[in-house]
Order: sequence, then C-alpha cells, then structure tokens
Amino acid sequence: MKIYDVEGFPNPLRVRVALAEKGALESVSFIAVDVLGGEHRSAAFLAKNPAGAVPVLELDDGTCIAECSAIIEYIDHQFDGPSLLGEEARQRAIIHMLQRRAEFMVLDAVGDYFHHATAGLGPALEVDQHKQWGEKQKHTALNGMSYFDRLLGQHEYVAGETFSCADITLYAGLAFAEYSDIEIPVKHRHLLSWRERIAKRPSLNLA
Amino acid sequence: MKIYDVEGFPNPLRVRVALAEKGALESVSFIAVDVLGGEHRSAAFLAKNPAGAVPVLELDDGTCIAECSAIIEYIDHQFDGPSLLGEEARQRAIIHMLQRRAEFMVLDAVGDYFHHATAGLGPALEVDQHKQWGEKQKHTALNGMSYFDRLLGQHEYVAGETFSCADITLYAGLAFAEYSDIEIPVKHRHLLSWRERIAKRPSLNLA
Ligand SMILES: N[C@@H](CCC(=O)N[C@@H](CS)C(=O)NCC(=O)O)C(=O)O
Ligand SMILES: N[C@@H](CCC(=O)N[C@@H](CS)C(=O)NCC(=O)O)C(=O)O
Repeated sequence: MKIYDVEGFPNPLRVRVALAEKGALESVSFIAVDVLGGEHRSAAFLAKNPAGAVPVLELDDGTCIAECSAIIEYIDHQFDGPSLLGEEARQRAIIHMLQRRAEFMVLDAVGDYFHHATAGLGPALEVDQHKQWGEKQKHTALNGMSYFDRLLGQHEYVAGETFSCADITLYAGLAFAEYSDIEIPVKHRHLLSWRERIAKRPSLNLA
Repeated sequence: MKIYDVEGFPNPLRVRVALAEKGALESVSFIAVDVLGGEHRSAAFLAKNPAGAVPVLELDDGTCIAECSAIIEYIDHQFDGPSLLGEEARQRAIIHMLQRRAEFMVLDAVGDYFHHATAGLGPALEVDQHKQWGEKQKHTALNGMSYFDRLLGQHEYVAGETFSCADITLYAGLAFAEYSDIEIPVKHRHLLSWRERIAKRPSLNLA
C-alpha cells in the first residue's frame, strides 16, 4: 500500500505515528505530494481525495482512503499490536470522542487559524481567507488546550491509562500550534508534561 | 442508559436512527434539553459535554459520551444487528471516511451556515456570528451535495451496497439543509432518489 503525503506536516504525522506504533512503517511506500506547488488541487489528486488534502492511503486494489481517522481505523484493524482505538464499546467510544475533540478543539482550529489568519501556505494557495474567522479559531484552540490540560491532570493519556489515537491527534495539534506561533500557555503544566512524555515514544522518533 | 437531546434536531436524529436500526430504542431513556432556553450552556450541562451541544449519551456508570459518531460507535458495539460501521478493515475505513465527509462537506457546513449566516437559534444564543464564513459554508454544503450525488450514481448507499452510519449522517445533513432553506438542486437526482428510499426505512419512521 501507498501513502501520499508531505513529511513533517501535521496530518501526515498522525498516520506515520500510528504506523510506527503498530510496527508497520515498512509495509507502506510513501509518495511525496508537492503541496506547496499545489499538486493536491490537481484533477488527478482530487480524484484520490476530493477534499484536496494529504494524507491519502491507497490500497493495492486502488481504493483511496482519506481523513486521518479513517486511515488509522484501517491501520488499526489491519496490523497487530495494541489497539489505538480501544477494545470494548465504552473504551472505543471514549477514545473516538476524545480523538474528535482533539481534532475540532485543537488541530482543526489551529488549521483554520493558520490558513485564514496568517500567510498560511502562501498567496497562491490561500485564495479565500476569512481572517476574523481564523482569529476566532485561535481562541477555540486555546480553549481546547485548557480543556485537555484539565483532562491530563486526571490521567496519564488523553483517553485514560493507555496511549491511543486521541494522543496522536492532540500531539499533532500542539505541533501545528507551535509551527503557527500559537504559544501553549506555560500554566498548562499537565499538557506540557504529557507532551514531553509523548515526544519520547519510539514512534515519534521514527515517524 | 440515558440520552440528553432535543427531538427533531438533526444531530439527535442521527443517534435515534442508529438506535432504531439496531432495535435498541427501548434500552434508552431520553431526557429533553431546553436548547432554545440555553440549558446546554449551563455549567451542569457543560460538565457532560464541554462542547455545549446535544446529543449526549450517559452510561449507567455516569460516563458521558458526546459526538454522534462516538455515540454510534458505542451503540454499534453494544447492540446486536447488522453493523452500521462495517466488518473488516477496508469496509470500516470507507464507511468512516464517508461518514466524516458527510459531516464536514454537508451536515456541519449547513450548521455553520445556519448558525452564522441566518437567525439560527435566535439572538440570545447566536452571540458570535461570522456571516461571511457562514455564507461560504453554504457553498461548501452545495458542493458536498454534488459530490454525494455523483457517489450515489455509482452505488445504492453512500458507502457501497449496504446501509451504514454514513447514510445516517448525510440524511441528517439534507434534513438540516432543508430546514435552513438550502434547496437541494433538482439536478441531483441520484441524491434525491436515495433520500426518498432512505426516508422509507422503518428506523426513520420510528426515531
Ligand atoms: N481532516 C483531514 C485534514 C487534512 C489536511 O488538512 N491536511 C493538510 C496538511 S497537514 C493539507 O493537505 N492542506 C492542504 C491545503 O490546505 O491546501 C485529515 O484528517 O486528514
Ligand atoms: N458534532 C456534534 C454536533 C452537535 C450539535 O451541533 N448539536 C446541535 C443540535 S443539532 C446543538 O446542540 N446546537 C447547540 C448550539 O449550537 O448552541 C455531534 O456530532 O454531536
């Protein structure tokens, strides 16, 4: 199977970390997409992902899977190793909810700030900016950080006592925030010490 | 278990239809939340769902699950009957992706239009409107309809030949569009005939 992505971008990072956690990085060939050159908006790429974004997983039968959470659902079922999505109904629902919250409260909110209220990917790509909306989403992201700081004061990982895909999404969200010059308030010490712990995982140093 | 919601609202509808599909409506007591009166923004409700939105599933141990996709993950694992989320890796990933697309390309885009560019839930609740963003999201929703129309020209249900939670989300998205006076273009005949078929399911007439 193939993954179309850009090394070092926040969403691609999620999938690479998930693969590394499952020991499955070797099963994939990575194909670089020239996002800064606009390749992800070409007809050929939009046929793979109509949302015009990376990463995209292409299976050997040609099926394309976009959206990191869907790609990670595939990886989690396909490869051995501890589940990133949980085992029984209650745990799966909690992980699913917190993964979604890490997306809309942090990662995607930072993305809106980046694309709408900063230079983003540059004038050739950021052709429909809504600055005021972008600024509001910066506050959404800061509120999200405060929520996750409280949560991480209660347990070691985002969704409880085990590492899950919710940790991966939040980690990517903080990385994107830093890249976008949104500072993580130093008062969020649970969040910051969790981040330090996560950064030491082998998967973060391989992916 | 309990569900806090408002009968007839688009997101609550998703969970009620999922329960009906699984024959599990009787296992739940529904508690009405006074959303129009702002109850979902009270401290008591925000403790159940910090996003301040319905529906919320409360398990017998007090655990609260928000986000329809997470609630449906719980329901799907907990109750018998055909899976709404798919069986093996490839099918689960396709359903997951199309469920997300039905959210961000249609249902949530309509929600942004409704809350930002129309009177929405009224002046007491819509206190931070971004009208231009809301208008843009109406176009996102219309593009989403066009995408799903093409898809539904290829197979009977959103994610292939079986009904799934992706159908539920898209159905709720179209219901919300209609409520918000976004007309579904008549040229989208695959989408419209799919909707007619879905509307006849017993679950839609129970939920
Ligand atoms: N929700 C998507 C987000 C994907 C996304 O936004 N990817 C970024 C790179 S981190 C992208 O391709 N951006 C291109 C653009 O904004 O034009 C996912 O989960 O994969
Ligand atoms: N992503 C959420 C959306 C929930 C949502 O937006 N619910 C609406 C009712 S359909 C709501 O509670 N709105 C309250 C408000 O906007 O103040 C989910 O999947 O449950």
